[in-house]
Amino acid sequence: MHFDLIKTDPCSSARAGILHTDHGDIETPIFMPVGTVGSVKAVHQRELRNEINAQIILGNTYHLYLRPGTEILAAASGLHKFMGWERPILTDSGGFQVFSLAENRKLSEQGCTFKSHIDGSKHIFTPEGVVDIQRMIGSDIMMALDECPPGESPYDYARKSMELTHRWMDRCFQRYLETEPLYGYNQALFPIVQGCKYPELRRISAEHAASKDAVGYAIGGLAVGEPTEIMYQMIEIVNTILPVERPRYLMGVGTPANLLEAIERGVDMFDCVMPTRNGRNGMLFTWNGTVNIKNKKWEHCFEPIDSESSSEVDRVYTYAYLHHLIKSEEILGLQIASIHNLHFYLEVVKTARQHILAGDYAKWKSLVLPHLSVRL
Amino acid sequence: MHFDLIKTDPCSSARAGILHTDHGDIETPIFMPVGTVGSVKAVHQRELRNEINAQIILGNTYHLYLRPGTEILAAASGLHKFMGWERPILTDSGGFQVFSLAENRKLSEQGCTFKSHIDGSKHIFTPEGVVDIQRMIGSDIMMALDECPPGESPYDYARKSMELTHRWMDRCFQRYLETEPLYGYNQALFPIVQGCKYPELRRISAEHAASKDAVGYAIGGLAVGEPTEIMYQMIEIVNTILPVERPRYLMGVGTPANLLEAIERGVDMFDCVMPTRNGRNGMLFTWNGTVNIKNKKWEHCFEPIDSESSSEVDRVYTYAYLHHLIKSEEILGLQIASIHNLHFYLEVVKTARQHILAGDYAKWKSLVLPHLSVRL
Repeated sequence: MHFDLIKTDPCSSARAGILHTDHGDIETPIFMPVGTVGSVKAVHQRELRNEINAQIILGNTYHLYLRPGTEILAAASGLHKFMGWERPILTDSGGFQVFSLAENRKLSEQGCTFKSHIDGSKHIFTPEGVVDIQRMIGSDIMMALDECPPGESPYDYARKSMELTHRWMDRCFQRYLETEPLYGYNQALFPIVQGCKYPELRRISAEHAASKDAVGYAIGGLAVGEPTEIMYQMIEIVNTILPVERPRYLMGVGTPANLLEAIERGVDMFDCVMPTRNGRNGMLFTWNGTVNIKNKKWEHCFEPIDSESSSEVDRVYTYAYLHHLIKSEEILGLQIASIHNLHFYLEVVKTARQHILAGDYAKWKSLVLPHLSVRL
Repeated sequence: MHFDLIKTDPCSSARAGILHTDHGDIETPIFMPVGTVGSVKAVHQRELRNEINAQIILGNTYHLYLRPGTEILAAASGLHKFMGWERPILTDSGGFQVFSLAENRKLSEQGCTFKSHIDGSKHIFTPEGVVDIQRMIGSDIMMALDECPPGESPYDYARKSMELTHRWMDRCFQRYLETEPLYGYNQALFPIVQGCKYPELRRISAEHAASKDAVGYAIGGLAVGEPTEIMYQMIEIVNTILPVERPRYLMGVGTPANLLEAIERGVDMFDCVMPTRNGRNGMLFTWNGTVNIKNKKWEHCFEPIDSESSSEVDRVYTYAYLHHLIKSEEILGLQIASIHNLHFYLEVVKTARQHILAGDYAKWKSLVLPHLSVRL
């Protein structure tokens, strides 16, 4: 697996590249739909492929480990075959989900013990274990185990947490180097930069991560409660240290505006549950702003969601119909909103890429950005 | 709208025909997926068209009247345009749903008052009103208002109920003849035969319905608790009286085996929530029997649901994957199971039609029937 940096915007740090994987090329910047437990909620694999144009999707190690479990995934020869998805897959390390279990988890040097949210059974995630699990899942891009402290963590806690993350990172890479892929294609391991909102810690963490000479790097622990401006500052700091010729993945971010700002600061990869989760709650993202489809104003709007969209759902279903479906709690409403939003997110990164290649990204961004957060 | 009876099986009453509507032809025998409130649950319209091969779908007047309501449907120029479905639509009269509201409804000569299951608001369905509502919905086939008594109703109640249904039928037809379609295409009105499990009442009711010289006829009040054999007997009685050259629609039935038995007895049209509702509960219908996909035996079955199916979901998703999705309560599981079952139901009626046309329906039916109810 390797990354070709094709072009950098002359007026910003925005970059266009191609990440080559054994399951196909990924044109960056890219957004990765979240397929938590082996399915992007309410979306068929063929819709991801043909309508949303997803080039890579994300799976959650925590969820996949619990269900269907590594034994089933290994018997299926990995998640790609299990779910019928032949393009790349990235998995997180499970750390983020485990740490959000709050009282049901306990941290130690060795790793993190936790109780399953499904049946209360006890488990442990160690740095070595999550590499083994991701080998069995067979993701193209695996993540190192990290601790993700709250956005408002005090400095001392943030530093200790970061140091633990670094020791875990070292152990993950050691395990990674000692083991082989199980299904005949290559798997990369991305280290995760932590350090909370503290520039000094972010620098130290980026340097520790960079020392791994990885195929790509993740920036974690952002969009977890800190002000957005702090997030952007941290990205800038980290991206001055991470190697220029490798992809940078900003974990769990964000709104379309967040994506454009982070792309401008040199981020190449994103994932977020927002398009699907907010979609299921009736929120649509568009170039003109966000739509709360439950709002009565859409009840009589018999216009297609977007008559010029390349997504069929945008062309054939109307605002009024989607309003009705979401108000009536019809499953089809969740399906339409999820496809619309994911298609839009992929359009955002695709259009961003076109402007990076054309050399006018910064100008284009400043034109579209003000519209994105308008409430329609 | 008219029906061409093309062929009758030499060894049974099974018939193949074509019902011509302004929204296209319907090849009978046919199964109609239920699109309760303007959506076949968990299924896109394009999937109904291209994958399931639905030739007509059903809408529920009660649900559509409450949500989105006739005002919205009229503003959209009818349900076809509102939901983006250009093939035929049949609507029930709302009677069945209203009568299932139990304490929340009250019957009188005039009609039926009821409380909305959504907000408790009070409404009345009269014979004239449900014709007007179905005019606004714009269904190709409308149903007369009927009372649908429980399967075990005593004779006296069944007779009185039937007589009320007949008076309502007369009023429905009067209103039908006094009014015009609203959207430029023809709408038919089908009377509904009632009479519970009593042969004498079924005969009287079939004669009353037949006197309407309608485009087609419905058989209601079956599969509501009576033994299956009684249902088949009632169908036989009714179908000796209903005009041979008109389609007969058996309402709310049933299992694949029920369909084949009823087809053998001269029924042409069916609807039922079973393929979608049972699908959402993890039950799959196949030519070899029924599958409870939640059963642990499917956990390791990495075979496609049906590698030779014309439905893509059957070819790309495995039993193990669907087991996982349904166990994990993933929406995609509901989508896959719904498409699979509807596709199968349409395959059943299509294959039945081929055998009627080939003249060997009865023989074919006796070969496939024993397998359909096997629990795999």
